[in-house]
Amino acid sequence: MKNESIILLRDLSEDGILRLTLNDVGRRNALSEAMLSELGEAIAGAGKDPAVRVIVLAANGPAFCAGHDLKEMTAGRDAEDRGRAYFTRVMAQCSGVMQGIVNCPKPVIAEVTGIATAAGCQLVASCDLAVAAETAKFSTPGVHIGLFCSTPMVALSRNTTNKHAMEMLLTGDMVPAARAAEIGLVNYAVPEAELQATTMEMARKIASKSSMTLATGKRAYYAQREMPLAEAYDYASQVMVDNMLAHDAEEGIGAFIEKRAPRWQDR
Amino acid sequence: MKNESIILLRDLSEDGILRLTLNDVGRRNALSEAMLSELGEAIAGAGKDPAVRVIVLAANGPAFCAGHDLKEMTAGRDAEDRGRAYFTRVMAQCSGVMQGIVNCPKPVIAEVTGIATAAGCQLVASCDLAVAAETAKFSTPGVHIGLFCSTPMVALSRNTTNKHAMEMLLTGDMVPAARAAEIGLVNYAVPEAELQATTMEMARKIASKSSMTLATGKRAYYAQREMPLAEAYDYASQVMVDNMLAHDAEEGIGAFIEKRAPRWQDR
Amino acid sequence: MKNESIILLRDLSEDGILRLTLNDVGRRNALSEAMLSELGEAIAGAGKDPAVRVIVLAANGPAFCAGHDLKEMTAGRDAEDRGRAYFTRVMAQCSGVMQGIVNCPKPVIAEVTGIATAAGCQLVASCDLAVAAETAKFSTPGVHIGLFCSTPMVALSRNTTNKHAMEMLLTGDMVPAARAAEIGLVNYAVPEAELQATTMEMARKIASKSSMTLATGKRAYYAQREMPLAEAYDYASQVMVDNMLAHDAEEGIGAFIEKRAPRWQDR
Repeated sequence: MKNESIILLRDLSEDGILRLTLNDVGRRNALSEAMLSELGEAIAGAGKDPAVRVIVLAANGPAFCAGHDLKEMTAGRDAEDRGRAYFTRVMAQCSGVMQGIVNCPKPVIAEVTGIATAAGCQLVASCDLAVAAETAKFSTPGVHIGLFCSTPMVALSRNTTNKHAMEMLLTGDMVPAARAAEIGLVNYAVPEAELQATTMEMARKIASKSSMTLATGKRAYYAQREMPLAEAYDYASQVMVDNMLAHDAEEGIGAFIEKRAPRWQDR
Repeated sequence: MKNESIILLRDLSEDGILRLTLNDVGRRNALSEAMLSELGEAIAGAGKDPAVRVIVLAANGPAFCAGHDLKEMTAGRDAEDRGRAYFTRVMAQCSGVMQGIVNCPKPVIAEVTGIATAAGCQLVASCDLAVAAETAKFSTPGVHIGLFCSTPMVALSRNTTNKHAMEMLLTGDMVPAARAAEIGLVNYAVPEAELQATTMEMARKIASKSSMTLATGKRAYYAQREMPLAEAYDYASQVMVDNMLAHDAEEGIGAFIEKRAPRWQDR
Repeated sequence: MKNESIILLRDLSEDGILRLTLNDVGRRNALSEAMLSELGEAIAGAGKDPAVRVIVLAANGPAFCAGHDLKEMTAGRDAEDRGRAYFTRVMAQCSGVMQGIVNCPKPVIAEVTGIATAAGCQLVASCDLAVAAETAKFSTPGVHIGLFCSTPMVALSRNTTNKHAMEMLLTGDMVPAARAAEIGLVNYAVPEAELQATTMEMARKIASKSSMTLATGKRAYYAQREMPLAEAYDYASQVMVDNMLAHDAEEGIGAFIEKRAPRWQDR
């Protein structure tokens, strides 16, 4: 995997951990059209690349990600329709990237330093797992500029309870990492010096599992989450049966019973 | 706005904060028919009144709200149908008031002192935000009197996880404010002396935002929360596009880029 | 109620608390076909038995429950269809037992000592309430053996937020009881010496309530949880009206107003 972009760095380790690092520091890693395009492509590509087992999403600079690029958005107003077609396209692109993370067969871990705001906060909320430096901060500040964070709240409200999400959305206040961990937006807040070691340990642990099993499970997780209980059980039971009949479960269970390490099909 | 009622006090500040204070102290602020009627009307009226930007719901006396008026309910049994028509009407009225809070375009903050029980606990759970005095307590005690808190649990279970809601519902135990904050029923528990200052600071912060933006966002929040992910993104993206094209977003984003304070259309 | 089984002990107290104790210690209380059969029958029977008011689910030995019996599952592979029919049957049986707990009219409290893994963790998540010894541990470790915990996650994800559930599912890590309490998988983690006293106090409290009221409320809780807000209120309002017209509510409310103890119909 070549590292052709300068706004999104890609680094794939030998054990299958792809680090994607937002690197448009001067624009506070805003989700410009260029960044959305790079990011969407990188996630989609990693989803199909058998060499990638886990994705870590990190960032350079004081901002993890500042959300949409407001200057770019404002320039869109010059069109004859005052930007409606343009905004519609950008929102579809951004929502597509966020859902691309949820639908990616590879687990995605956010490694958050600095400030994650608006669609930047949504990016963290959209990842399967997230670890933040204790110095990191989160907010959905759209309300300050008359533009409610309505797409960010889709992801946010699927991670926190209503009153916690509403507090962020209605006040636009910055939430420190420790509070973000309490309300479920991130798994843990850790000292900044330990952040990368923490996420990479988590990533290595997950990378050692069967990619087929991870893909099966991640897809099933988000699918069953939206079903009523009885339907969820019917669906998940079928997933379990298919999983039982796959090579890696037969191998994994056999290895467990024989007390040896499993050899996954794709390793 | 005149303050005609003695069981529900109304006080509107110059910066658009409407304080509604339950004041039927002798009946522990029970949700009698009269109180439900006053409260429903006050919320509906505030929703339409451009002078109101945020609502704070407070209470006088040792009980924030004791839920339904059991003596009034019991008197309803004297009817030929043993009260079925009457109970049906009261339940519809009460559920209407609760949903009126959720559907009100203005954010509603509960400021909880004392004891909030049964439909009184539901009232807190139905607000967008809630701050409680550390001395406040919550419960859904219907199980003690053979009448499960089935309508309160609709609001409660949309704020807490299942086991926390079920513990309150099955035991009827009193939950101290600190625990209520842990399980998501309120945003914060603060010293009683700081309670009003805390909610009013929160209210002033929200009142300084564009009412159009708050109304758009609040409505979208509860609507998208009930949709599957892909549908929620389609819907919220459309909301964002419409919001971008509204005056207050153009003004707010312009003000942000030009580093000046925004002037909202309705101010 | 006779205690015929040796893998599932049954002990019914005079005040209506049925203790079911998993007792297949040598197999770490695995959910073998025999255990699933015993457990499903015991829960279904208790649901219909007026002498049972509350169920406590406990376990003997170092493992609360280790999930499916992997040796038994592996033996199923010898069939001509490589086990598909067998796995389908076991998954249906297991999902049936889990839903049997949710659908049981009597509240079910998990009293967790030792290690609860995979479908054993699902068993805890499926109970209405759960208290764990501080020494207890939880995990969904299927990912270690190539078999994602897809049915356990149905119950898990209805108790915790997404990132907490995904962390357990993707890493397979052991979660100590204190963390399980933080993320909502159990209500409390208590010192092991106080565990049984804590669950039995909770059970006695619930057993003193009207069984009709508990059954009404428990059924309504899980039903309304899956409905949109307006539908949930319509449904719950109807449940309240019916509950108001039942004997135990009339008696309970009357007793409350007259400041005496209520006499439930089934006591």
